[in-house]
Amino acid sequence: MAEKYLEDLMLHALKDINFAEHMILKALPSMIDGAKDAKLKTALKAHMKETEGHVKRIDDAFAALGKKPESVPCEAIKGILKEGTELLEDFGGTAVGDAAIIYACQAVEHYEINRYGTLHAWALELNSKPLAAIFEATLKEEYAADDKLTEIAEGGLNQSAESKAARTKLRKRA
Amino acid sequence: MAEKYLEDLMLHALKDINFAEHMILKALPSMIDGAKDAKLKTALKAHMKETEGHVKRIDDAFAALGKKPESVPCEAIKGILKEGTELLEDFGGTAVGDAAIIYACQAVEHYEINRYGTLHAWALELNSKPLAAIFEATLKEEYAADDKLTEIAEGGLNQSAESKAARTKLRKRA
Repeated sequence: MAEKYLEDLMLHALKDINFAEHMILKALPSMIDGAKDAKLKTALKAHMKETEGHVKRIDDAFAALGKKPESVPCEAIKGILKEGTELLEDFGGTAVGDAAIIYACQAVEHYEINRYGTLHAWALELNSKPLAAIFEATLKEEYAADDKLTEIAEGGLNQSAESKAARTKLRKRA
Repeated sequence: MAEKYLEDLMLHALKDINFAEHMILKALPSMIDGAKDAKLKTALKAHMKETEGHVKRIDDAFAALGKKPESVPCEAIKGILKEGTELLEDFGGTAVGDAAIIYACQAVEHYEINRYGTLHAWALELNSKPLAAIFEATLKEEYAADDKLTEIAEGGLNQSAESKAARTKLRKRA
């Protein structure tokens, strides 16, 4: 096998996240349509706009490497989004539908936080300030999107997804 | 569709992470075999032992709910591990092989951190202290495993994965 270095792995990871971001862009509308809570719908719409920006930043990253944008199939995001579709089918439209959407979307956010975090660390290691700046900008937005989803979930949405029996039990315990 | 509540989604998530932990247990040996760095090999072996403990804790969680352990196929972990296998095939045995293994394993850790974090939040919401304690214990170990991998990557492993050309360029810039 040909010898491979950190630069090769970083390029592979860039092609992988390029594929992933495009798949996420295609998956977000059904999550937005499925969301009932107004704050959740607004947050997902805002994140879709941001995701369009992430795709543009990936183009910039390829340009900084003197390359044209390319993709490789990302099996991880395929699986994560497939699970998201199943969750929407199984729980969408029920009392816990919005919590299920947040649960599905946070798996996506955590995948991206991990990937951009690693890309950022590799760019620093390879002393590429332009790439590090690109990955850091998107990483910050992914962290913020994840925090926003947690805030919405814990701001009453999870509570309203409990059954009456669970709520009654809680009141008795309180 | 039958009405569904937070308790139903939590039970679904528990069956999902049960499937995932068993798949991770099957996948770890090839990552351990592929690792060259002694610290990385040791860390992965230690995490495999911990993962056996996570499976036992999931059994305890089912018992706390008065149920027998069950699984549902977890598409996300299937995809994440498939990507890990591909990374091992494409980069294993090269200078960047260990960095690729860490990259693959951290996607698994982040998935688990997300899932156990959510399970923990739901258990607190449902006021189930035994479940919250179970999920928190595993969550802490997943965070620690992720941090350990970052420490190994940044403790010289990423650097040694760079090509000579990249290192020469770095020396010139320094």
